[in-house]
Amino acid sequence: MRILILGGDGYLGWATAMHFSARGHEVHAVDNYLRRRALAENGTDSLTPIADSLPARAAAWEEVAGYHIGVTEGDLCDWSVTEPLFRDFQPEAIIHYGEMPSAPYSLISREHAVFTQYNNVVNTLNVLFAMRDYTPRAHLVKLGTMGEYGTPNIDIEEGFIDIRHNGREDRLPFPKLPGSLYHCSKVHDSTNIHFASRIWGLRSTDLNQGVVYGIETEETKLDPRFVTRFDYDELFGTALNRFCLQAVIGHPLTVYGKGGQTRGYLNIVDTLQCVELAVMNPAAEGEYRVFNQFTEQFSINELADLVHRAGTDYGYNIRVDHVENPRVEAEEHYYNAKHTALLDLGLKPRYLSETLVESMFSAIERHKHRVITKAIMPRTKWRPEPRVMESIAE
Amino acid sequence: MRILILGGDGYLGWATAMHFSARGHEVHAVDNYLRRRALAENGTDSLTPIADSLPARAAAWEEVAGYHIGVTEGDLCDWSVTEPLFRDFQPEAIIHYGEMPSAPYSLISREHAVFTQYNNVVNTLNVLFAMRDYTPRAHLVKLGTMGEYGTPNIDIEEGFIDIRHNGREDRLPFPKLPGSLYHCSKVHDSTNIHFASRIWGLRSTDLNQGVVYGIETEETKLDPRFVTRFDYDELFGTALNRFCLQAVIGHPLTVYGKGGQTRGYLNIVDTLQCVELAVMNPAAEGEYRVFNQFTEQFSINELADLVHRAGTDYGYNIRVDHVENPRVEAEEHYYNAKHTALLDLGLKPRYLSETLVESMFSAIERHKHRVITKAIMPRTKWRPEPRVMESIAE
Repeated sequence: MRILILGGDGYLGWATAMHFSARGHEVHAVDNYLRRRALAENGTDSLTPIADSLPARAAAWEEVAGYHIGVTEGDLCDWSVTEPLFRDFQPEAIIHYGEMPSAPYSLISREHAVFTQYNNVVNTLNVLFAMRDYTPRAHLVKLGTMGEYGTPNIDIEEGFIDIRHNGREDRLPFPKLPGSLYHCSKVHDSTNIHFASRIWGLRSTDLNQGVVYGIETEETKLDPRFVTRFDYDELFGTALNRFCLQAVIGHPLTVYGKGGQTRGYLNIVDTLQCVELAVMNPAAEGEYRVFNQFTEQFSINELADLVHRAGTDYGYNIRVDHVENPRVEAEEHYYNAKHTALLDLGLKPRYLSETLVESMFSAIERHKHRVITKAIMPRTKWRPEPRVMESIAE
Repeated sequence: MRILILGGDGYLGWATAMHFSARGHEVHAVDNYLRRRALAENGTDSLTPIADSLPARAAAWEEVAGYHIGVTEGDLCDWSVTEPLFRDFQPEAIIHYGEMPSAPYSLISREHAVFTQYNNVVNTLNVLFAMRDYTPRAHLVKLGTMGEYGTPNIDIEEGFIDIRHNGREDRLPFPKLPGSLYHCSKVHDSTNIHFASRIWGLRSTDLNQGVVYGIETEETKLDPRFVTRFDYDELFGTALNRFCLQAVIGHPLTVYGKGGQTRGYLNIVDTLQCVELAVMNPAAEGEYRVFNQFTEQFSINELADLVHRAGTDYGYNIRVDHVENPRVEAEEHYYNAKHTALLDLGLKPRYLSETLVESMFSAIERHKHRVITKAIMPRTKWRPEPRVMESIAE
């Protein structure tokens, strides 16, 4: 199958490119190195060394694995980049990771907020128009996020909910309560993609993904140059990855607030499985479907406990700190999100365990000399200090 | 009260500026003439002559009415325009009409779609950040649209709905099914404004307005130079205004498709009442509230019948044509939208009647020599002809 991977230089994008390539698909990867630049601006870097450009990574892959991955270095907001990708490569599936993926990044400043929404909304609009005009039967597999739903007081369904109201009923989009301007941008994308499927008949799958952890996949282990990026900083790091790294370097585990915040989680190898299941079982013409893509729910405290337990067994001396929560979010709340659609398609989860955490420790150990400690603590606040005094007389 | 009016050169914006100014408020109006340019690009113009620039209109207002309206000609997507408006004028209320308001315009091309979403989302983000940083106690009164809801098979509530699900319940944002990429942009705005109110404590009212009709307000009648614009073209004209104009010039009334499409409608003088009620009864700190702003529901066929009846009595010879619907929308559907919040605040509706339609005829008659007939028929299709042949082998 001809598969276009948007954001093919990223943590999941590069691992996904190798995964499909190794299975005989014709893969083309696109990236504009936004993540690399954002980390460099912030004075930090991936734990794993990603010295090579995307073309050089693809060349190493071809040399060792024998499979070709096509590469475009460019910005999907630029139509002169997006159009030829669809017109010439004629993808049958598009896997769209090509967005600015950080909640705190979107709240650094007005400029960062505007950039985040511009980048994510406009590049996805470009993709939808390119599909409409050049590959109307192709299937868009778009990475959404469980964070679009927020933490409602009812069970979270997969994208749609049957509502009975005043004696009538309809199946409607599940209400969204996104928790950052980044998460808002993903809700905007979902609205636009749903529209494009309804009106233009496009096939689309929105994968509302939980928090991904893990550092190794089948392919990354084949050669040191195949390693995928691993971010642990306040902007792009995710909770379990950060906790494991903190355990390895002797930094207290930083639990934000009370730690009752509960979310869905999954292993990076299960991300690859889920995306493959979505691609191999495409949406119908005009169908916009949503899968909640995670395998288990944990609170932050549960993750900290697990890392504490596994780390202590491993010989680390671990402290858990509750730091001031930079975010505005419920720290104790109901959370029960459905996630059966991907299981029904055949997903075999690799559940989180002490053994898995220990394998992360050993992978992190190999690169611990690269850790930039100052990047770990949160600095970006959801409610910044007021810039000016209130001047309206009451 | 210090009131900032965004989009103050428009059909509703200019009428609103005069309305508040005449009641002793300190009004500042901002516009970048987007609507004027969009019509000029399309070879058409407002029925009513708007020869003067916004400063000249404000000068005429000051000369006759004796009230000053401040003016800024500029683009709210440009922070160097938005920031000083909030920093220096320190508005207590912001009435936000400053968006690209046309569904067909947003679907002319990819470029128009991207522009629409960029313009609407980014200028509203700028407003939210300016409020956060300079006027955190001000009240945003944002014009949304009933079109955000689409036509669900259940009653439409005002912004939020109580959902019982699997034995639990929550009050959540009402699910949205926007019918164009313009309507999607308004949903995006609603999501962002709700976020800003929850996280930053901003006061906000989203007025999900129905289709506005009418050509005269208390202030427009005072002097010919106070006239507000009146669009009847395929991009910016609305159904009843277009039907009245068609009746006057002897053009068949253009009903799109079967004509069962039902929407909420209100008179422009009720728009002014509603906006004033929202401003004078502000949202609480951190509150994001939604009012459905319309007074009556009609199907397109009912409006065509009314204009046919009133026009025949008035002496016109009227034909009703069902033309091919350029939109993708349900032409027969359930529609029952709640609209009690503004009535509870004191709204006294001016209902649609034959008499009112006749008064529109006479106002339109005065400018009928200005009608550009070729601008009336719809050309912009929701589903354009495919640009390329499908090239994926099946």
